[in-house]
Amino acid sequence: MPDLLTVFARNMKHHRTSLGLSQEELAHKTDLHRTYIGSVERCERNISLRNLEKIAVALGVEPSKLLAQKKMGN
Amino acid sequence: MPDLLTVFARNMKHHRTSLGLSQEELAHKTDLHRTYIGSVERCERNISLRNLEKIAVALGVEPSKLLAQKKMGN
Repeated sequence: MPDLLTVFARNMKHHRTSLGLSQEELAHKTDLHRTYIGSVERCERNISLRNLEKIAVALGVEPSKLLAQKKMGN
Repeated sequence: MPDLLTVFARNMKHHRTSLGLSQEELAHKTDLHRTYIGSVERCERNISLRNLEKIAVALGVEPSKLLAQKKMGN
């Protein structure tokens, strides 16, 4: 079972790319830095719930969905 | 809609008390400090995913369930 940072990073990237957003565009929408977004997607950051929440809002997805380990449709 | 730290704190406390665990017992199982567990349940901490994962493992619950906003049965 992958660790939770890996699961989150994978789900976040999946939703970001599904929306056709670049890391830079997501950074702008979340008010986080582009390099921070990149490092989260590379599982280099132990992200906090407040930042997870910002990312979920920007992606229009339930926060819990970003931690779901199951294979996602679409 | 309550913020995500509040949702998490509520779900964590729900699962902890359902298992009949004290904050101190959960602290022991997670290797986190009892006062830290207490402050998370009072929404005073912006908890990270690694600590959320430790808590989920100790409570025997999927991490995503701890962020679910819907009313939980049992």
